[in-house]
Amino acid sequence: MLKHSFKQVQPVSFNLRSFSSMSKQLQEFRIETDAFGDIKVPSDRLWGAQTQRSFENFKIGRDNCIMPEPIIKSFGILKKSAAIVNTELGTLPKDISENIQKACDEIIAGKLNDHFPLVVFQTGSGTQSNMNSNEVISNRAIELMGQPENKGKKIIHPNNHVNQAQSSNDTFPTVMHIAATLEITQHLLPELTALKDSLQKKSEEFAHIIKIGRTHLQDATPLTLGQEFSGYVQQLINGIERIEKTLPNLKKLAQGGTAVGTGLNTKIGFDVKVAEVVSKETGLDFETAPNKFEALASHDAIVEASAAITTVSTSLFKIAQDIRYLGSGPRCGYGELSLPENEPGSSIMPGKVNPTQNEALTQVCCQIIGNNQAIIFAGTQGQFELNVYKPVMIFNLLQSIRLMGDACKSFRLHCVDGIVANEEKISKLLNESLMLVTSLNSKIGYDMASKIAKNAHKKGLTLKESTLELKALTSEEFDAIVRPENMIGPKP
Amino acid sequence: MLKHSFKQVQPVSFNLRSFSSMSKQLQEFRIETDAFGDIKVPSDRLWGAQTQRSFENFKIGRDNCIMPEPIIKSFGILKKSAAIVNTELGTLPKDISENIQKACDEIIAGKLNDHFPLVVFQTGSGTQSNMNSNEVISNRAIELMGQPENKGKKIIHPNNHVNQAQSSNDTFPTVMHIAATLEITQHLLPELTALKDSLQKKSEEFAHIIKIGRTHLQDATPLTLGQEFSGYVQQLINGIERIEKTLPNLKKLAQGGTAVGTGLNTKIGFDVKVAEVVSKETGLDFETAPNKFEALASHDAIVEASAAITTVSTSLFKIAQDIRYLGSGPRCGYGELSLPENEPGSSIMPGKVNPTQNEALTQVCCQIIGNNQAIIFAGTQGQFELNVYKPVMIFNLLQSIRLMGDACKSFRLHCVDGIVANEEKISKLLNESLMLVTSLNSKIGYDMASKIAKNAHKKGLTLKESTLELKALTSEEFDAIVRPENMIGPKP
Amino acid sequence: MLKHSFKQVQPVSFNLRSFSSMSKQLQEFRIETDAFGDIKVPSDRLWGAQTQRSFENFKIGRDNCIMPEPIIKSFGILKKSAAIVNTELGTLPKDISENIQKACDEIIAGKLNDHFPLVVFQTGSGTQSNMNSNEVISNRAIELMGQPENKGKKIIHPNNHVNQAQSSNDTFPTVMHIAATLEITQHLLPELTALKDSLQKKSEEFAHIIKIGRTHLQDATPLTLGQEFSGYVQQLINGIERIEKTLPNLKKLAQGGTAVGTGLNTKIGFDVKVAEVVSKETGLDFETAPNKFEALASHDAIVEASAAITTVSTSLFKIAQDIRYLGSGPRCGYGELSLPENEPGSSIMPGKVNPTQNEALTQVCCQIIGNNQAIIFAGTQGQFELNVYKPVMIFNLLQSIRLMGDACKSFRLHCVDGIVANEEKISKLLNESLMLVTSLNSKIGYDMASKIAKNAHKKGLTLKESTLELKALTSEEFDAIVRPENMIGPKP
Amino acid sequence: MLKHSFKQVQPVSFNLRSFSSMSKQLQEFRIETDAFGDIKVPSDRLWGAQTQRSFENFKIGRDNCIMPEPIIKSFGILKKSAAIVNTELGTLPKDISENIQKACDEIIAGKLNDHFPLVVFQTGSGTQSNMNSNEVISNRAIELMGQPENKGKKIIHPNNHVNQAQSSNDTFPTVMHIAATLEITQHLLPELTALKDSLQKKSEEFAHIIKIGRTHLQDATPLTLGQEFSGYVQQLINGIERIEKTLPNLKKLAQGGTAVGTGLNTKIGFDVKVAEVVSKETGLDFETAPNKFEALASHDAIVEASAAITTVSTSLFKIAQDIRYLGSGPRCGYGELSLPENEPGSSIMPGKVNPTQNEALTQVCCQIIGNNQAIIFAGTQGQFELNVYKPVMIFNLLQSIRLMGDACKSFRLHCVDGIVANEEKISKLLNESLMLVTSLNSKIGYDMASKIAKNAHKKGLTLKESTLELKALTSEEFDAIVRPENMIGPKP
Repeated sequence: MLKHSFKQVQPVSFNLRSFSSMSKQLQEFRIETDAFGDIKVPSDRLWGAQTQRSFENFKIGRDNCIMPEPIIKSFGILKKSAAIVNTELGTLPKDISENIQKACDEIIAGKLNDHFPLVVFQTGSGTQSNMNSNEVISNRAIELMGQPENKGKKIIHPNNHVNQAQSSNDTFPTVMHIAATLEITQHLLPELTALKDSLQKKSEEFAHIIKIGRTHLQDATPLTLGQEFSGYVQQLINGIERIEKTLPNLKKLAQGGTAVGTGLNTKIGFDVKVAEVVSKETGLDFETAPNKFEALASHDAIVEASAAITTVSTSLFKIAQDIRYLGSGPRCGYGELSLPENEPGSSIMPGKVNPTQNEALTQVCCQIIGNNQAIIFAGTQGQFELNVYKPVMIFNLLQSIRLMGDACKSFRLHCVDGIVANEEKISKLLNESLMLVTSLNSKIGYDMASKIAKNAHKKGLTLKESTLELKALTSEEFDAIVRPENMIGPKP
Repeated sequence: MLKHSFKQVQPVSFNLRSFSSMSKQLQEFRIETDAFGDIKVPSDRLWGAQTQRSFENFKIGRDNCIMPEPIIKSFGILKKSAAIVNTELGTLPKDISENIQKACDEIIAGKLNDHFPLVVFQTGSGTQSNMNSNEVISNRAIELMGQPENKGKKIIHPNNHVNQAQSSNDTFPTVMHIAATLEITQHLLPELTALKDSLQKKSEEFAHIIKIGRTHLQDATPLTLGQEFSGYVQQLINGIERIEKTLPNLKKLAQGGTAVGTGLNTKIGFDVKVAEVVSKETGLDFETAPNKFEALASHDAIVEASAAITTVSTSLFKIAQDIRYLGSGPRCGYGELSLPENEPGSSIMPGKVNPTQNEALTQVCCQIIGNNQAIIFAGTQGQFELNVYKPVMIFNLLQSIRLMGDACKSFRLHCVDGIVANEEKISKLLNESLMLVTSLNSKIGYDMASKIAKNAHKKGLTLKESTLELKALTSEEFDAIVRPENMIGPKP
Repeated sequence: MLKHSFKQVQPVSFNLRSFSSMSKQLQEFRIETDAFGDIKVPSDRLWGAQTQRSFENFKIGRDNCIMPEPIIKSFGILKKSAAIVNTELGTLPKDISENIQKACDEIIAGKLNDHFPLVVFQTGSGTQSNMNSNEVISNRAIELMGQPENKGKKIIHPNNHVNQAQSSNDTFPTVMHIAATLEITQHLLPELTALKDSLQKKSEEFAHIIKIGRTHLQDATPLTLGQEFSGYVQQLINGIERIEKTLPNLKKLAQGGTAVGTGLNTKIGFDVKVAEVVSKETGLDFETAPNKFEALASHDAIVEASAAITTVSTSLFKIAQDIRYLGSGPRCGYGELSLPENEPGSSIMPGKVNPTQNEALTQVCCQIIGNNQAIIFAGTQGQFELNVYKPVMIFNLLQSIRLMGDACKSFRLHCVDGIVANEEKISKLLNESLMLVTSLNSKIGYDMASKIAKNAHKKGLTLKESTLELKALTSEEFDAIVRPENMIGPKP
Repeated sequence: MLKHSFKQVQPVSFNLRSFSSMSKQLQEFRIETDAFGDIKVPSDRLWGAQTQRSFENFKIGRDNCIMPEPIIKSFGILKKSAAIVNTELGTLPKDISENIQKACDEIIAGKLNDHFPLVVFQTGSGTQSNMNSNEVISNRAIELMGQPENKGKKIIHPNNHVNQAQSSNDTFPTVMHIAATLEITQHLLPELTALKDSLQKKSEEFAHIIKIGRTHLQDATPLTLGQEFSGYVQQLINGIERIEKTLPNLKKLAQGGTAVGTGLNTKIGFDVKVAEVVSKETGLDFETAPNKFEALASHDAIVEASAAITTVSTSLFKIAQDIRYLGSGPRCGYGELSLPENEPGSSIMPGKVNPTQNEALTQVCCQIIGNNQAIIFAGTQGQFELNVYKPVMIFNLLQSIRLMGDACKSFRLHCVDGIVANEEKISKLLNESLMLVTSLNSKIGYDMASKIAKNAHKKGLTLKESTLELKALTSEEFDAIVRPENMIGPKP
């Protein structure tokens, strides 16, 4: 699967999966079987009968709603962990276990992605994706045993061996949690942190630049550009904490609940041990969920994570929106910032730089807010022992995580890092503003100050021009009193 | 304002405000003034010119969108605290301060609610509600000085004294946080906890009742009714923690930022001291916000709180939904639970009990999910130094808090506390189910077990009838093996 | 209930209901009965036992979630219509019918609002509000018969007479449709139309003013201010049509479906006749729903109406947002428009006018978008023969209608009607812009035009200054060619 | 791009695009240029410099957020139409035009999909996708001229020829409308109609089956299963109309507005002619938008379409939800319907059929409701002359259309068409119900009827058993009176 693979383009970790290397000679099939009987499966694919049936029965959104890769990878992690524990507990022969583990390692490494063709909009328990992983692992393990001719023969059995002591109803919520935790910790939080650091750097760089403040979009008292950016930094500091606070619940795994949460068909301790092995495999501190009924029948932890990410999206929207307005112009807007020019704006109008990264980021925020709504609704709809909206919930959450991480990176590299303050314009606006008149009150009284401001507004003068015209102060006096740098903090 | 005030009805803490005691002789006015000039104000009202202008300029949603009482109360707390601090810092004379504090105490006690007529849909900074509180406190303090004839004369000045060292831009976000924190800690969390305890009690009461599990709405392996309810309990345990986790950010106060976040016109330390006095007044540990630019220009803490409450609403929806389906019937539904009968269902059909409390609660969840959407959208729309969606954000958050608390209480008292398990029906369904066949596998083999199940399904027999018909086991053998009580947990 | 009732304030049609005139001597009760037995009801209230029970059992959101007045009024219309039809069909004695009709007329006139105390968050079928109207009509009709001492004796029976041939399950959806239709046609559409007309007037007034266009917030080719406003007008023309398109489905009435949609206990033709009488009473062309099962079990027409209103809210948001940005300043923003000054912005800064009406309107849009979400969710949750989210759905829809109508009126009167174009500023920006350089291409070639623009951008010159500096054209030539008025439309 | 291409699988019209056949020898590039200078482009790709820059600058959501195929196809249609009109107007040489048209035909046929690599989250005007189409058409037209060696030389110029008289700001909204209209008319409406017909057939098939009604989930008066399904049919009849009502606005094309809506650089009539040619190419009656300022700066028509589709999703949710509850069981649920068994439910439990198609469909409804929220938010955010959320809006709308169409088809084929009524169970429930007691009132009086019902409820008897036990009627009398078939409609 070579995609986007020429030199200029950096490898992307999260790609469109395609099935293009799929058997080109259409007659090449093997027969796989399940409780419903025989079914043809393309001979170069490792999946089995249940995957094939789902592939045929759920042709819904195949263009862009394929089960996400982090779910597949997490199935690799989980199935490997279960095999290790089952062998430890004496219920899975060591050689079978080892071949299962090797197959899982290939899944974890992304080598078997082309064998996971199912869409999100399938059964709401994710059963068919659980079976997809069981079938692929079974057949790949059989190959690894050196018996490729025995694929489909279930000598390493998808249910009895690969799925041992498990049910779709506990494996799928488990992989939901593993996948979300991995994506958040390995992709989203690092990118949010990098963006926060970039904004922090700008806040320091702009610490000396005094500018007009704006409330209700109207001119207000001054502040520094560094202070303005410090608000963005604080939003992201808080945002990172908000997302981190959701991790403890995401790290609680449903595994061990089996069909309805009771743990029927597991041995005591299986749940705790699986969480331990998953922790070891991932380097993250997963633990078994304290109540498996809750863990199967509701997905509040997914709703909670999406809620936090959505809260952060409101922050990012505000930041990106402010920056594009501050960069509006070049002549007829606020014009306080220059944003990097990454692509031709207009061939004829130099200085026209469209804030395209801001547009991409704010669009991502819209998407995340929409995804959140899908998740909230799905989250309400658990029924008795199972919530059957698992795939749509994790699909949206993983997309939100991925998009926010990607967009933060793109916005940082192609926008924030390159922002330049237009100090001349900022200074001009500050000095044209009438708001500095407040500093005259103590010297010449409110009435005269007000008169100066009104005169300036009426005649289009600067405050200083108006002050001199009304002979309220000398030029030197004015300059001594009207000092924006004294207006940017509390007084002793 | 005597409402709902007859004996049978308990006092409600949070009432419709009306202005019905307003001057009935329409000619009775006094003149109040502001920068725009004179304006008539009803003589029996304490508000001033700016309130009156807003009252006339914003006739939007007067039927049910009045600024909520917790906001008014929180203004009382804040203005009192500011007066204390200003006197301490030497900028507000002691006698003026004391009268302001007394007026504030009356607001806190709810005695002046009829003097706060403004709607939510006003200026987005809440300026007019800040001025409403300044004006009412000014006039009431003047009365308390013994000079009722001087109302409107500003001898205790709404801006210079009551609003000293403050701006709408920092007071309104401060009261948003105080109000939300008070309502969450004093109303919502206690009610969620009481509901959790009530469900916990039911979980224990039902610990011995084994019932059929249901996944995909289809019969599945058994669990106890107590286990099922334990899932609900866990959802609420988590939910309470989710809401508690939002309190630290809500307890950070914007006060001290003044107009744009710089703290212009405050003395160093004012912000910290106000937070300390507010803490003392409320018994809650508020602190000053670490970054005032963030605190004025964004309301991520409000979005965060709403997000947590919304997450809990998905839990409550699931719980209420399950319980009404389990109580569906009496003859043609699941019928496992009997819900309390609180009002006539049908005069002719005994046993018909409509799950009205569940309906009220799930409707409340819909409302909260909608409110959350309004808050998210508003939360994205901060502009430069100010987010001007403050009133709509806090209106929705306070409504969500209030509705969830009220509905939890109503649901607990009128539904959960009185739920009775229909043990006979539960037992009948369990025994009719074919799912118990799984326990036969080990004894008679998968093939025969499957044959028994299929035969039962086809002929409408019980498992036992089918087993005996097929002579697979004796009656005694069957009873010895098919024991649901062995199917509700992991095995050693 | 005299509220807001002094002269300066226009009467509001849609007020907070209060229960303040409620019996002040707490001992004054009468006994009412239902299937559950006796219950005390305040003697000055007309409601009966079922209302009283609901009042006590549903203490949820009493501060601002009372059943809206349009619902009460619509119950008056419906119950009157049913009485007329039942008498016509021979099942209701004429004298009873006439007293019922008189009582209904009082409800329609708003005289009995204080007798409808129930909250929105009650049973999801609205049964208790249906019974509230039955009980109040029964008791008021008994009074009108001249037998006030027989209140509660049911000589005109709430069920047998007032509710004859009806069920809550068909009356409540019927009043939902009547109320929404009335509010849309009598309040919302007139206000949207008036706002559209006001914008149209401004579009014509501004037809001659050429201004810089802005895309991506960046300077672009020119257009007239009138053209810009014409886009707003078109949005509202379309918006009005969008809402009108929802009326045919809202005008379909569920009445006649009774309990489950079959029409059990009605006479053939009852449904058609009721719709006819309701049409006569309201002057609007209601008709009976073609399928009563759909009309009880789903509320797609309510979802549809909310969806259209929400679409219009996106238009209003854009319009209000544009106008406040165009009015931003006075010195440091776009400053192309002056908005009316309705209340003091800042006592010290002349020219600072906060766009408070825009803030109120955009906040209303947030609320409507949130309400829509509540409605969508509730709309999915019909179960078998009934959707039991009726009250929350109509509560949100009526609030959206009311708020949008109110806010359009307020925005029109206090903002749009008074907008003034700052022609000087608009002209200055246009002439400073570099975008007009495009008109030079044909005369001096793309390369020289580009050189002029780049030179101007670099040195901060106007286009003309740059052109003259580079000696590309004479002043006269420049003025002859660079004519923005030739850039605002297609060419022949 | 061979995917899913073995025989058993029907061709999917809407596939994942991949770039896997992309040059594998990484050194093979050609140089393309734009205003920014030279850039390497893979030699086997037809795109140019601007596409390449965007590909590198926007690495956001590459896994599943690629610009949808219907947009690409619509660009083919539009660019062809523009070429035809420009030639007709005399501004585009005929030979160039013909090669452009040929290239466009290949795009329309889906042959050049691999040359459109850009993601949704790019500039908000879709400029880069417009340039992608211009560049690909330019290079492909140059190839078709027989000069493949001149790719990148712009002898057919992407801007001057392919984009002649156009701007991204009018082309992108035009393709949004074309794509949505095509997808709705060719995919969604046919599938909704087919599902409606399938439900209609079931409604007729089930017309004779009388069953218990359920309101509040509680047993209620009877109706026929056919009546119940007729409600679903009515929902879809209305839903189809709701979506059709949005087409007139979608069929209004922005083309001709160019950069800001004025039509600068077009000839008079260009807009009307393009709409005519697009109509001819598609067979649908597009027309030019009456106001181009509205058409560029807002996307209310997209919001409107999404709103209608979302309304329909609430209908589909209700239908799918009802059917799965009615099919719940086999022993411990409602059990009135048998749904088709499409994949193994449980190997051990015959009769366990998970309602997987219902789960897929209701998950799709969640997704659509979420997508709608993204669209609403984006729809509010137009700024001045442009809404820069175009890609995210159309991405979500097209996904909603596609998913709903796909899921309706899947639900119809794999669920509805195969639903069987369990007449025995339905009849048993009906006869066990106590609700039929209402029919006894007229014969034996309300009091005795009530006594019978209460006795039956208390002792678990059927109504008939209770009647006989209380000797109220003989068996024959009972059977003569209690006739559910007389309870399913109004009486003469």
